[in-house]
Amino acid sequence: MKPDNIPHCNQPIGIFDSGVGGLTVYRAVRDRLPGENVVYLGDTARIPYGTRSPVTVRRYAMEDAAFLMSRHIKLLVVACNTVSSVAMELLRDSLPIPVIGMIEPGARRAAQVSRSGKIGVIGTEATVGSGAYKSAIGAIRPDAYVVERSCPLFVPLTEEGWAAHKVAEMVAAEYLAPFRAIGIDTLVLGCTHYPILRPLIQKIVGPDVYLVDSGASAAAEVERLLRDRELTADTVEPPETQFCVTDFGDRFRRVAEIFLGQPMDHPETVDLWGKQ
Amino acid sequence: MKPDNIPHCNQPIGIFDSGVGGLTVYRAVRDRLPGENVVYLGDTARIPYGTRSPVTVRRYAMEDAAFLMSRHIKLLVVACNTVSSVAMELLRDSLPIPVIGMIEPGARRAAQVSRSGKIGVIGTEATVGSGAYKSAIGAIRPDAYVVERSCPLFVPLTEEGWAAHKVAEMVAAEYLAPFRAIGIDTLVLGCTHYPILRPLIQKIVGPDVYLVDSGASAAAEVERLLRDRELTADTVEPPETQFCVTDFGDRFRRVAEIFLGQPMDHPETVDLWGKQ
Repeated sequence: MKPDNIPHCNQPIGIFDSGVGGLTVYRAVRDRLPGENVVYLGDTARIPYGTRSPVTVRRYAMEDAAFLMSRHIKLLVVACNTVSSVAMELLRDSLPIPVIGMIEPGARRAAQVSRSGKIGVIGTEATVGSGAYKSAIGAIRPDAYVVERSCPLFVPLTEEGWAAHKVAEMVAAEYLAPFRAIGIDTLVLGCTHYPILRPLIQKIVGPDVYLVDSGASAAAEVERLLRDRELTADTVEPPETQFCVTDFGDRFRRVAEIFLGQPMDHPETVDLWGKQ
Repeated sequence: MKPDNIPHCNQPIGIFDSGVGGLTVYRAVRDRLPGENVVYLGDTARIPYGTRSPVTVRRYAMEDAAFLMSRHIKLLVVACNTVSSVAMELLRDSLPIPVIGMIEPGARRAAQVSRSGKIGVIGTEATVGSGAYKSAIGAIRPDAYVVERSCPLFVPLTEEGWAAHKVAEMVAAEYLAPFRAIGIDTLVLGCTHYPILRPLIQKIVGPDVYLVDSGASAAAEVERLLRDRELTADTVEPPETQFCVTDFGDRFRRVAEIFLGQPMDHPETVDLWGKQ
């Protein structure tokens, strides 16, 4: 590798997602690493990724990564379980910087905390269809019994602001019933939207089931990797976050506020296609 | 207009939508005009349009229309209320063939059938945000009192196959409560997904409310326009339908069957971007 390919510690961390879900990962990274600059990209013009085919998700992921590379990031966080489940190898092979996804950190955490080995995973249709969590957990803990289920209505429910609505409770009861029947002791929230539904999910599965937030586990891995490679920012400048989106409208403004916990001021609208 | 720009009667009708919703319009066109060739494009790689900003919807609409023009269509049906509400002028100004959208036919039908003039409209956030139905109905019937409401969960519920689920009933009861309070006598189904929910919507608003299916009204307009311009197909060849999608996967196959009422055999996967 040429010296100019070696990232510098004061370059920003790049984070991308299909839209707003990755903001839960951004918050976890921000909490752990308050001194880092971050560039966040939400591909809001093409959200959702979770119902698309793997070939299309890979194409979108490469375009998102190319945009963030143009912003000179030192590390890429794939804050989208769908992309993480079908495009990690492609991204790692294509990029000269470290790439951290959602699957491995979440799987590792689940394998570590589960006592019985009965582990549930919920995610989008694409994530569950890929079987990525099942493989990753099985590779660490071959004795694990992993049951996966897609929950397609969870994303629109959170984006509608109905996380505490009785409709969300009814939907969650239906989606999560199989896990109660099996008696899991650990449930992986395998979609970055789901932490918004955490109180509801905990209520349905019961207080004894440990909920693994893959985004929070990934943020811990980002911290560790930066430390190990001596890439932690060392500037005294106040850190900045640049939010970029591919489509910006009233809906995004409203939904982003739910996920970010505060208004998102002036995100930059970017054109990924003109750059290709 | 140059002679070679005049469409020939045996060219196909082009229909596009962001995905599967337009298949309800396709079925209405097919029922009325069984002798016509049709090219249907579902932009499944970028569905949904209804939560995006007008500028992005216009860009997508122009790309969809350009693809169908490359298939030598004689008439374009914009089988998407969102596109119809923000991009009709652009499409009509840009294309040398007749363009029929959803808004005008639906608005005309509502203005015609309502006795009291109290008319409800339901649609996506983009459609309702544009106020297109309100303007179109008001232009025909200035005395009308039009109330619009977006129903963002209806699309994911129909695509989940939950049109008859108790969750759908609860969501519909919440979305449609204002219309019951106002006492409308006509409700426009201003999204091509909604005919799938028709029995449920009728149950909630009551049997005396007339439901306007904009897609069916548009199909009637297609028939009239072809007849008036002498563009009705006159070949003895059996008619064909070519289904084209921008992303094809298991989910699409399953959802398309709900909308089409039968399996969709071998749709052609097309790349709109390579063609630009």
